[in-house]
Amino acid sequence: MIAKSQAKWTTDAREALRAGEGFRLAELDPESTPGYAGKKADAVADLAAGLAQLGEYQERLFAASRGGDATDSVLLVLQAMDSAGKGGIVRHVVGGVDPQGVQLAAFKAPTDEERAHDFLWRIEKRVPSRGMIGVFDRSHYEDVLIGRVHGLAPAEEIERRYGAIVEFEKRLLDAGTRVVKVMLHISYEEQGERLMERLERPDKHWKYNPGDVDERVHWRAYQEAYQTAIERTSTDEAPWFVVPANRKWFARLAVQELLLETLEEIGPRWPAAEFDVAAEKRRLRATMTSEG
Amino acid sequence: MIAKSQAKWTTDAREALRAGEGFRLAELDPESTPGYAGKKADAVADLAAGLAQLGEYQERLFAASRGGDATDSVLLVLQAMDSAGKGGIVRHVVGGVDPQGVQLAAFKAPTDEERAHDFLWRIEKRVPSRGMIGVFDRSHYEDVLIGRVHGLAPAEEIERRYGAIVEFEKRLLDAGTRVVKVMLHISYEEQGERLMERLERPDKHWKYNPGDVDERVHWRAYQEAYQTAIERTSTDEAPWFVVPANRKWFARLAVQELLLETLEEIGPRWPAAEFDVAAEKRRLRATMTSEG
Repeated sequence: MIAKSQAKWTTDAREALRAGEGFRLAELDPESTPGYAGKKADAVADLAAGLAQLGEYQERLFAASRGGDATDSVLLVLQAMDSAGKGGIVRHVVGGVDPQGVQLAAFKAPTDEERAHDFLWRIEKRVPSRGMIGVFDRSHYEDVLIGRVHGLAPAEEIERRYGAIVEFEKRLLDAGTRVVKVMLHISYEEQGERLMERLERPDKHWKYNPGDVDERVHWRAYQEAYQTAIERTSTDEAPWFVVPANRKWFARLAVQELLLETLEEIGPRWPAAEFDVAAEKRRLRATMTSEG
Repeated sequence: MIAKSQAKWTTDAREALRAGEGFRLAELDPESTPGYAGKKADAVADLAAGLAQLGEYQERLFAASRGGDATDSVLLVLQAMDSAGKGGIVRHVVGGVDPQGVQLAAFKAPTDEERAHDFLWRIEKRVPSRGMIGVFDRSHYEDVLIGRVHGLAPAEEIERRYGAIVEFEKRLLDAGTRVVKVMLHISYEEQGERLMERLERPDKHWKYNPGDVDERVHWRAYQEAYQTAIERTSTDEAPWFVVPANRKWFARLAVQELLLETLEEIGPRWPAAEFDVAAEKRRLRATMTSEG
């Protein structure tokens, strides 16, 4: 068994961070650390300890789908305003896992071909296969976020999408994919500071896009679109977790913990051999004396 | 600038490991550590130091393709007999790099659809895009290795493929992709021990396949197929590097060093801003007072 984390969580992260009935994004403090009693130094130590755990869970998840007949997989969906730290989550949380067990998909503005299909068409193609940890850097939620803020689709179409998303994610779960939906929640002030830092450091200029400021002007509209999307799609099958992200150390630890709790619930086991171990040892031993 | 590695290399790894004129696989000791004067403890320290370097090079490579107009990319091709350590390279060398900058492709037995095309059809689709580090876990070389050993294609077809590979890889280089071809070279005895370890550990049973012993019987034929493939396709544009791999610590360090030297040669730089930095700072500052 993998030892339960000894970290300074006072409750399950999935309880502390879940957007349940009556959730109000505007009332969640982006500086807060719900469910976690530690400080930055504790979090850094807990993150390092968690990496090894996550690595072992991932290997078991993968093994159970190869040697056995488990169909489990995990899909981490990351949504956030610009500069909220999605990239840091991929690098520092997902990056600690064997790349052979991870399927990462970054969704940009759809291509002409993608636009000629339903919004879930391109998403379906990137769903993780059995045994894998999939990560969506942006996702089908863009189609009810930027889609709503900029009126890229009629209101009835946006309405239709909430329902389609709920059914889609339920199907994923029924087929073995746990969907872990995370919104990284930063404050307006924090975003301003992070964008300014990109402008002040020449080695960060490539990360800056003048469009970031154009989007920032729509901040309130985006917050409302997130609030509505979360209300309409946070289900028992695929709840939203809203992670206060002004403190990067907390956001990273929290997402790692959400993944750990999800994998613990799956509880993947090393599969039993599908061959006769003793017979294979004899067969192998017979090849030991001379080259083929 | 990124500091040149202070590691215990006595010469460039690309010189020490290159399969040049007159290369004989049978004469290369799988226990040896060509070009490296350190021991295991040195290699572990050098590997850790190299990870940070590789990470910075990768970020620059990526940035130069985004903010600038660089078209460079790197493609690491990994070939080896079973259990030689490809997975360990992916985990411990590639795994140290931001997953957002890596495109990993594992090639298994071709599907019916792939078989209905030329052998390079499925390969072309997985070539890394600009700014990325691509990794092939097995590759188009399977089509002249297992293809030759098991007579999956007529001799003339195998002959045709060597030429097609050389032209294909030359085109990749012309388009900006450095191809780093690595064969991990283990001894017949070492393979036997590693397979036996998989049989002895229940948590490794899922990695064992009775087919591994069937293939082991063809060891000599595979070595000859590698020798021929290397002779026919080790070019100035895309040389083969044969890495003695009985010592895992050396193989990992050597592949890391091959990547570092390749990236050093590319010399990716942070791109200049494509916008007016001062004007953007003013525009951003104007958004600081109140939410949009």
